[in-house]
Amino acid sequence: MERKIKLGVIGAGRIGKLHAENIIFSIPNAELKAVADIYTDRIKNWAHGLGIKNVYSDYREILEDPEIDAVMICSSTDTHAQIIIEAAEAGKHIFCEKPIDFDVDHIYQALDAVEKAGVKLQIGFNRRFDHNFRKVQELVKEGKIGEPHIIKITSRDPAPPPIEYVRVSGGIFLDMTIHDFDMARYLSGSEVVEVYTNAAVLVDPAIGKEGDVDTAVITLKFANGALGVIDNSRKAVYGYDQRVEVFGSKGCITVSNDTPTSAVLSTEDGVLSDKPKYFFLERYKDSFIEEVKEFVDSIINDREPPVTGIDGLKPVLIALAAKKSCETGMPVKVE
Amino acid sequence: MERKIKLGVIGAGRIGKLHAENIIFSIPNAELKAVADIYTDRIKNWAHGLGIKNVYSDYREILEDPEIDAVMICSSTDTHAQIIIEAAEAGKHIFCEKPIDFDVDHIYQALDAVEKAGVKLQIGFNRRFDHNFRKVQELVKEGKIGEPHIIKITSRDPAPPPIEYVRVSGGIFLDMTIHDFDMARYLSGSEVVEVYTNAAVLVDPAIGKEGDVDTAVITLKFANGALGVIDNSRKAVYGYDQRVEVFGSKGCITVSNDTPTSAVLSTEDGVLSDKPKYFFLERYKDSFIEEVKEFVDSIINDREPPVTGIDGLKPVLIALAAKKSCETGMPVKVE
Amino acid sequence: MERKIKLGVIGAGRIGKLHAENIIFSIPNAELKAVADIYTDRIKNWAHGLGIKNVYSDYREILEDPEIDAVMICSSTDTHAQIIIEAAEAGKHIFCEKPIDFDVDHIYQALDAVEKAGVKLQIGFNRRFDHNFRKVQELVKEGKIGEPHIIKITSRDPAPPPIEYVRVSGGIFLDMTIHDFDMARYLSGSEVVEVYTNAAVLVDPAIGKEGDVDTAVITLKFANGALGVIDNSRKAVYGYDQRVEVFGSKGCITVSNDTPTSAVLSTEDGVLSDKPKYFFLERYKDSFIEEVKEFVDSIINDREPPVTGIDGLKPVLIALAAKKSCETGMPVKVE
Amino acid sequence: MERKIKLGVIGAGRIGKLHAENIIFSIPNAELKAVADIYTDRIKNWAHGLGIKNVYSDYREILEDPEIDAVMICSSTDTHAQIIIEAAEAGKHIFCEKPIDFDVDHIYQALDAVEKAGVKLQIGFNRRFDHNFRKVQELVKEGKIGEPHIIKITSRDPAPPPIEYVRVSGGIFLDMTIHDFDMARYLSGSEVVEVYTNAAVLVDPAIGKEGDVDTAVITLKFANGALGVIDNSRKAVYGYDQRVEVFGSKGCITVSNDTPTSAVLSTEDGVLSDKPKYFFLERYKDSFIEEVKEFVDSIINDREPPVTGIDGLKPVLIALAAKKSCETGMPVKVE
Repeated sequence: MERKIKLGVIGAGRIGKLHAENIIFSIPNAELKAVADIYTDRIKNWAHGLGIKNVYSDYREILEDPEIDAVMICSSTDTHAQIIIEAAEAGKHIFCEKPIDFDVDHIYQALDAVEKAGVKLQIGFNRRFDHNFRKVQELVKEGKIGEPHIIKITSRDPAPPPIEYVRVSGGIFLDMTIHDFDMARYLSGSEVVEVYTNAAVLVDPAIGKEGDVDTAVITLKFANGALGVIDNSRKAVYGYDQRVEVFGSKGCITVSNDTPTSAVLSTEDGVLSDKPKYFFLERYKDSFIEEVKEFVDSIINDREPPVTGIDGLKPVLIALAAKKSCETGMPVKVE
Repeated sequence: MERKIKLGVIGAGRIGKLHAENIIFSIPNAELKAVADIYTDRIKNWAHGLGIKNVYSDYREILEDPEIDAVMICSSTDTHAQIIIEAAEAGKHIFCEKPIDFDVDHIYQALDAVEKAGVKLQIGFNRRFDHNFRKVQELVKEGKIGEPHIIKITSRDPAPPPIEYVRVSGGIFLDMTIHDFDMARYLSGSEVVEVYTNAAVLVDPAIGKEGDVDTAVITLKFANGALGVIDNSRKAVYGYDQRVEVFGSKGCITVSNDTPTSAVLSTEDGVLSDKPKYFFLERYKDSFIEEVKEFVDSIINDREPPVTGIDGLKPVLIALAAKKSCETGMPVKVE
Repeated sequence: MERKIKLGVIGAGRIGKLHAENIIFSIPNAELKAVADIYTDRIKNWAHGLGIKNVYSDYREILEDPEIDAVMICSSTDTHAQIIIEAAEAGKHIFCEKPIDFDVDHIYQALDAVEKAGVKLQIGFNRRFDHNFRKVQELVKEGKIGEPHIIKITSRDPAPPPIEYVRVSGGIFLDMTIHDFDMARYLSGSEVVEVYTNAAVLVDPAIGKEGDVDTAVITLKFANGALGVIDNSRKAVYGYDQRVEVFGSKGCITVSNDTPTSAVLSTEDGVLSDKPKYFFLERYKDSFIEEVKEFVDSIINDREPPVTGIDGLKPVLIALAAKKSCETGMPVKVE
Repeated sequence: MERKIKLGVIGAGRIGKLHAENIIFSIPNAELKAVADIYTDRIKNWAHGLGIKNVYSDYREILEDPEIDAVMICSSTDTHAQIIIEAAEAGKHIFCEKPIDFDVDHIYQALDAVEKAGVKLQIGFNRRFDHNFRKVQELVKEGKIGEPHIIKITSRDPAPPPIEYVRVSGGIFLDMTIHDFDMARYLSGSEVVEVYTNAAVLVDPAIGKEGDVDTAVITLKFANGALGVIDNSRKAVYGYDQRVEVFGSKGCITVSNDTPTSAVLSTEDGVLSDKPKYFFLERYKDSFIEEVKEFVDSIINDREPPVTGIDGLKPVLIALAAKKSCETGMPVKVE
């Protein structure tokens, strides 16, 4: 039997718990050795029910455990860079949720530490591991549509987050569109060099009061000459709307939304089918497992993780440009 | 924490292994205590890798373990009835793969033993737990299509089984169509009272030499007056084709095949999309988990399992009528 | 400029008027010279509005006009055979609506007269000229699905005809399913040799009182070994349901219903799309034009019409067998 | 019988011929009285074949015919404004192909003349009459998606026009996107106030040499706050790609491409369906008839035509802004 990678999860909020459960139930060559969360009280029952033995309030206990191969950083964004640095220094491989940080300097410091330590770093852009988007990327890479000319991404949430979250989210571009900026790079195989943001507050004025927007159309120029457009809304009443299209010299690829079932009901009132899956944990369920499987594999086989530190940095740079474009009303070059 | 049901798996071929793995990884309130298979050599590595401690060559060791609540009978069909009887006498709840037996008398004996012992028995008609078919059944039950008039089932395998398997399979009606007979009962909410079989050997003459057929159109009459039709083929080169349609006084429900992705590639050559999922374990993956979850729930909450012994008997009676109709060329009433 | 074929329409009910208007507006190389209907009063305004100069109460005036090349027989079914005979004797080419007659002997007499006269005869099985079904037939003929194994036809009317019509319709098999029997021959490229009818009165008891049925599942055996099934209902509340599927050794072809638009509306309530086109004149609009275009072409180029007298006879024979099977409950060989 | 509107067609190139034939065959309450084209030689046979009696080389002969109610201006764009002025002065109602002119002053002069004369003017934005787009507009207008937030238009030609045409076309925005600018106004029910163009030469360098682009993503701001995006390509190898999507506070509407048939072929190689209709005359066939029907109706019933002179002006203003944005790389307000 293959050796099992021992993992520690840092931060057991919604996404940390998800990763912990996936490691236990769905990733045969990984083992969850410990979980750390500053609110240990809140996770005790959950951890006990799953048979997790080591529950710490201080993540440093995980870093100090010589048996642990790698950590999953799922704490709040403002702690990511610091924990990456410490984990790297402790010689742990690192899986870090997106974004690394809102501040570019902090990101550079974290990436430097990782490079110095020679550990692996993977960023949690899980959508790259979605069955649909991955297939699109493969077809593009195989040249099935020739040279990409236009990349289109539709990304709409079913409902806006609580206003308290909006306040600390870094804004729609760093919080929500960042996934789409990553997707744009992933699908095009090229870098975004310029963005122009056309945005508005159409869903909820309270979002506007926080200085944020809730609806946006963002156009992109890519280094390879291709054009792109992302459209976002914080509220698609029919569900989580996640589609992409890549158009090129030899064809076009589209993917539509996943639905709970394929049932179609025809009556006097019309022909009715399922709405898209509503919740992101439901829609992207398998992608969260896949990304950690590949992280574990990249440790076992000592190869580069599929989403690198640079892949974590670039979408932040694009998001900052998009934010600036939104503020100035002018196109902005990506740093 | 809820109490865990302790299970033993009898017969660790393809389906037995699948159930064992599902119990370990996907069914939180169940625990796999033991596996029995006459060829213990063949399953040792597999069992060890999964951390299964008790591996027996004789299933009676499972029946004698007082800690085990229930057994999963996944051995060859000819052993089902006998093991059901013994398990019932040992006071174990029973999940048994379909069909219970090719012989109706054996089925009655097994059902009698179950009744006498007062244990639970669930038959492995997993398709009832498929997301698509379950949705159809719910919509029918809710009256969305009014009174059912026509039930249509398309069920085509991607490739015929090995000829050695055909020889011992009991014939296409008991081996393959039996699932569709169960589906017909499930979707219509009524009993099949008469069948007429129109069948041929079109896929492989070797199947004909074994006295079997490989292509069939079977019409059904239901007790509630509805009409039905099942079409089967042992070889659909484009994949596993599993669709149903229920038409009624107020509308119609259809479901189409599940596909690996929703990617659509448009080129000069046409518009290309994914083939249906090819392999039954891939297509019905979640349904195999769901059925055992519900079996376990029915033990914990002491309620009737969702697929009863009678549900195991009836499709065998329909299959025997279909076989007779195939031989005589005449419609045949179901016993 | 090409010579124009001069046509006379006999019987100006709904279908006769449709053909007349199509000839005037949509068939460049044909000219409508005259219309005959026993109720000339009822069609005067209509004919005047279209600029039709010759309106007769007696169709013999059309047969006696030496300038007229061909007649379109759109009168009631019981007059078809007699008018075919007279038209043939008058040397006119003949387009006759389906069915030729309910009585097989009358059909043979009509076909004999046509053969003797050496005129062309085309039967109005318009669905062969539908864009969807024609494409299916072409793909089958090109061998795209290999050898046909299973032919499936769904044919459901949006609403039952008036009970007065049911009374004189010849029954569902000669009135409605006859189109599907023709389609079965057209798509399979083979003859139906045996039928078995499973039918019921589920839509309206009044139809049952007339000795007819309104719901049917009819299985077919073809001379080439393929199997077939037709399902009919007189009432599909969601519209005119017209689909076919041909499954074979190398693949499967399906066609779905035409809809007025491709609009899809996603809201909180679900995903809603258009119902199938409701009315047969709307659904099969172009096919009625196509069939007459090809009839006219076959005269101009002196070639066999695309739907021959034999093609008119065979579905009647199958319908009579289906009717007998319905009465006896037994499979019936086609004469 | 209703009175027939007498029409004269000016300019019998591809689109002029199409209108002439539609008037003859498909518009019952209109009559084609005359056609004018400077190259009468080229259209003689065509006109004779259709029985058009009056064929002039000088369009003034049409304007001088007191029997003619209205003219269809289908000549080259540079002649539109002048002929509109003369036709208005002659008291003729006017249907004019898009665009009215590349020069805004000429358009104003033409609209002034029309207003002074009190005649009707309709501009040939035929896509508004397409079954799919009309349905979208109706659903938006009925409030089915609430307030519109994002309007998306995909508009891609199957192949670029000849380079000689590109040279005189006025550029992609005035030639091709102008339809999409009209569609944006039509679907949103609002005015475009600002545009930003992201464009490139990706299809053919020869187009770039003429100072034009062939691929574009154009973002729009609407007066009602909504955002929009149009994506264009001169070459979609899979056919004429014409889709729209309107997303709003209560839902989303999409339409997909029309295809020749609904046939789906499943084989070992995949699941293949029809490409979109390739040619614009095929794709928009019915819309060309509908627009003239409504023009004729607006004359008969003395109501405002469905696409007014202002509707002809506005897209030109947007196109000029888009062109300027393309040149400057900055967002541009619409005049």
